Amino acid sequence: MAGSSTHPHTRLCRHTDKAVYIRGKSLVDDLIGQVNFVDMIYFTIAGRMPKPAEVAILNAVLVSLMEHGLTPSAIAARLVYASSPENLQSGVSAGLLAIGTVFVGTAEGCAEVIDRLLTFPAAERAAAALEIVKEHRTARKPVPGFGHPTFKPDDPRAQRLLALAEEHGIAKDHVAALRTLSEAVDTVYARHLTINVTGAIAAVLGEIGLPGRILRGIALISRCAGLVAHLREEQLEPTMTAIWEAVEETVPYTEGS
Amino acid sequence: MAGSSTHPHTRLCRHTDKAVYIRGKSLVDDLIGQVNFVDMIYFTIAGRMPKPAEVAILNAVLVSLMEHGLTPSAIAARLVYASSPENLQSGVSAGLLAIGTVFVGTAEGCAEVIDRLLTFPAAERAAAALEIVKEHRTARKPVPGFGHPTFKPDDPRAQRLLALAEEHGIAKDHVAALRTLSEAVDTVYARHLTINVTGAIAAVLGEIGLPGRILRGIALISRCAGLVAHLREEQLEPTMTAIWEAVEETVPYTEGS
Amino acid sequence: MAGSSTHPHTRLCRHTDKAVYIRGKSLVDDLIGQVNFVDMIYFTIAGRMPKPAEVAILNAVLVSLMEHGLTPSAIAARLVYASSPENLQSGVSAGLLAIGTVFVGTAEGCAEVIDRLLTFPAAERAAAALEIVKEHRTARKPVPGFGHPTFKPDDPRAQRLLALAEEHGIAKDHVAALRTLSEAVDTVYARHLTINVTGAIAAVLGEIGLPGRILRGIALISRCAGLVAHLREEQLEPTMTAIWEAVEETVPYTEGS
Amino acid sequence: MAGSSTHPHTRLCRHTDKAVYIRGKSLVDDLIGQVNFVDMIYFTIAGRMPKPAEVAILNAVLVSLMEHGLTPSAIAARLVYASSPENLQSGVSAGLLAIGTVFVGTAEGCAEVIDRLLTFPAAERAAAALEIVKEHRTARKPVPGFGHPTFKPDDPRAQRLLALAEEHGIAKDHVAALRTLSEAVDTVYARHLTINVTGAIAAVLGEIGLPGRILRGIALISRCAGLVAHLREEQLEPTMTAIWEAVEETVPYTEGS
Repeated sequence: MAGSSTHPHTRLCRHTDKAVYIRGKSLVDDLIGQVNFVDMIYFTIAGRMPKPAEVAILNAVLVSLMEHGLTPSAIAARLVYASSPENLQSGVSAGLLAIGTVFVGTAEGCAEVIDRLLTFPAAERAAAALEIVKEHRTARKPVPGFGHPTFKPDDPRAQRLLALAEEHGIAKDHVAALRTLSEAVDTVYARHLTINVTGAIAAVLGEIGLPGRILRGIALISRCAGLVAHLREEQLEPTMTAIWEAVEETVPYTEGS
Repeated sequence: MAGSSTHPHTRLCRHTDKAVYIRGKSLVDDLIGQVNFVDMIYFTIAGRMPKPAEVAILNAVLVSLMEHGLTPSAIAARLVYASSPENLQSGVSAGLLAIGTVFVGTAEGCAEVIDRLLTFPAAERAAAALEIVKEHRTARKPVPGFGHPTFKPDDPRAQRLLALAEEHGIAKDHVAALRTLSEAVDTVYARHLTINVTGAIAAVLGEIGLPGRILRGIALISRCAGLVAHLREEQLEPTMTAIWEAVEETVPYTEGS
Repeated sequence: MAGSSTHPHTRLCRHTDKAVYIRGKSLVDDLIGQVNFVDMIYFTIAGRMPKPAEVAILNAVLVSLMEHGLTPSAIAARLVYASSPENLQSGVSAGLLAIGTVFVGTAEGCAEVIDRLLTFPAAERAAAALEIVKEHRTARKPVPGFGHPTFKPDDPRAQRLLALAEEHGIAKDHVAALRTLSEAVDTVYARHLTINVTGAIAAVLGEIGLPGRILRGIALISRCAGLVAHLREEQLEPTMTAIWEAVEETVPYTEGS
Repeated sequence: MAGSSTHPHTRLCRHTDKAVYIRGKSLVDDLIGQVNFVDMIYFTIAGRMPKPAEVAILNAVLVSLMEHGLTPSAIAARLVYASSPENLQSGVSAGLLAIGTVFVGTAEGCAEVIDRLLTFPAAERAAAALEIVKEHRTARKPVPGFGHPTFKPDDPRAQRLLALAEEHGIAKDHVAALRTLSEAVDTVYARHLTINVTGAIAAVLGEIGLPGRILRGIALISRCAGLVAHLREEQLEPTMTAIWEAVEETVPYTEGS
């Protein structure tokens, strides 16, 4: 692909008076009613239709990230929606802006570490993993993808995703690299730190060919759906006034600068 | 549901130290690997798991709205992403802000007209439809969901969605109401105006229990995925500089106020 | 101005290798250090430099709208910022998305009513105002720009803005029309409803040549500054965790759909 | 200030039934009509009213950043606005999301370098500056705040801002540190690289007590006003269709993945 071209192209979509083609397939004849939305997500992002195992994994990841209750993202979406109720898109956009480094940054960071480990020959990865983990410890940075405040000893979502990868026969280099890292983490820190859900996501999406740079996009698609469900609930049972009052009580005014 | 309660509740999600529950189901034991993302979309929004025909229709709608090429929404997403490349969420949010009345407003408007028609007894709907269409004509407003600038005589996407609704046995009152409206439109305007894709979406989502008020949310989920594909393309083959230069040429500076 | 031109132009800015010109003036030689930011706001929007009285009024409006405490807009901005602390722009954008119809819509609506009243000859405006107010009452719609839940009998901000318009000698047709409306409101409702701050803003901005369609933009500039102050406070004294916990307590989970 | 308190407070605003107080001052009696908008910006962010020299500098910075023509930020704002014309806030928010690391990151980076230099005793700063610049050169990173693709030998906006700081008697440690850095840059690179506008802004805002962490907020306030002017122009002379067509021509479809 001519990434540095000064005459860029798009490969996503073209129209005629009779039809819409997406990556060369007819929207009406080949796609609507023939393939599922998650196939299309993979197809438009990766440029080819996914195999069944790849769709299964992508579905599992999208399901796992979708909904986490009244997070700051969901609260922001509800408050903006209630202030601008004719614009569902404003509430959703505000909520998605909270999906940044704090939330999915660790998955991207873990994908980077896995990619770095995979540059070593297989026989050297155990040693390289120890080095990488020691680097993080020396710099007092957590290894991205490891540890969880409440899920102990292990994050059940991560275990489920990794088990699915095995079941579907797609667990190869990336999952192995994550497990190698996990052993190195336990050795260097001299205690067990769980592989968390972001670590597992980085590995299983790597196995199906979705690189770390686009991983945040997968989280956005999933969370977009979760936010729509929150706004549907806000339509049926508004929370905005109750939240506003609670915040004014929780963060009182005081004099001084 | 206690919509007017001053003590609102959420029914979406709760956590324990061991598990996450979404609408009462265990994320790890009942959902990840067991249901697909599109089942989850329906489940979290509508409050129950969908039947297979309902999932098929929701998939078809999500596929049909996902990608339309370099629209203003996609261009805005690419420009913002390229200006803030560490923040995929900013590009996606900017693009979603363009999904407003101009784009999906007609689907919502058509859902409203269908709902209004359904308040009449079945035997009176043909007459009521004529009245409603005449009202629009007198007010010089297009009937939402009808007509298309290029797809003539018929919008093939709309026909495909309506055919799928028949195949899956879910075409009932809403689809019938849309067809009644269509006859009234052709009669009042004395020529054939196609049911367009937004009209068909309004009808088939109505059949699976998703009301007009949340329809824009379905469009947002679909388009969110489409925008992620655009930003993946922007990562591989950047267009921002070429777009910037083209716009400066297309909209030149001139003196005067 | 060629509003319908298919070859649009921009009149805002051009560059050379040596200089930047904004609406024909040199940024370095004529603007930086020579004119104030509020002059520039008027200059870029309206296309000419403002008179001193016009700047005074625009300053007063910008000051009056800037800060209203922990509103939904400010809460959303803080939550998004705390989730994505490397991106001040995300927090500000999320907060601005809450500046919609609920907040400034009434000012725009009041500007429309004033403009409509000004289409009548001066001698007929009192009668026309009575008609317009009766229309609203019959449709059970509040007259935009009138009434306030706590400021009774009068909104002191509105009175201050109108007094300033008199002091600066710019109170003419628009302010007179607002006062005519006010008398009609009191007559039709048979009690005193205050001119509120949004009504006063509509009138005084109309007097300085800023039309209703751009009024929301003035509110956005003002509130943008207010949100930056909130995010500065969030940097120094974070509220996100406290807000999150308060919301989870205020909106508890319950079973059921 | 109790930054780490688990019981956070706000110091910005409180209401009564009669009045609004901002940082202890009555909005109606002390602020509207008494102080200008730019005073208020400083007052709400910094916690005290500015001195005249401080307001002059803040005005100059806000004027200098406001408008740069049809940048990606302005294009995105126009496209989103034209897609959702009832929502000026959506267009402005989309445009502001483009104000990230690419645009104002260098000003923040320069503020960090200045702050680092100021940790050294005055007598050691020349030597420390040489070290810092060499570090950047070794890491093949540009020194933030220096160099410009077209303004050579010097960026006139930077020179103007620094001259204003001298005129107003506020040029002290920060400006001196920037000049020390400038000498080190020229020495290490063995040629003259201009102090650019972002470098000058970092220095002069540092002199008036606005730290690097909030600098992006000042840019957002300024650019918010610039975007409102673009959207006013879009109202009067729409560019969306012309831009859309130009982009489709500039970035054509091609087959392949």
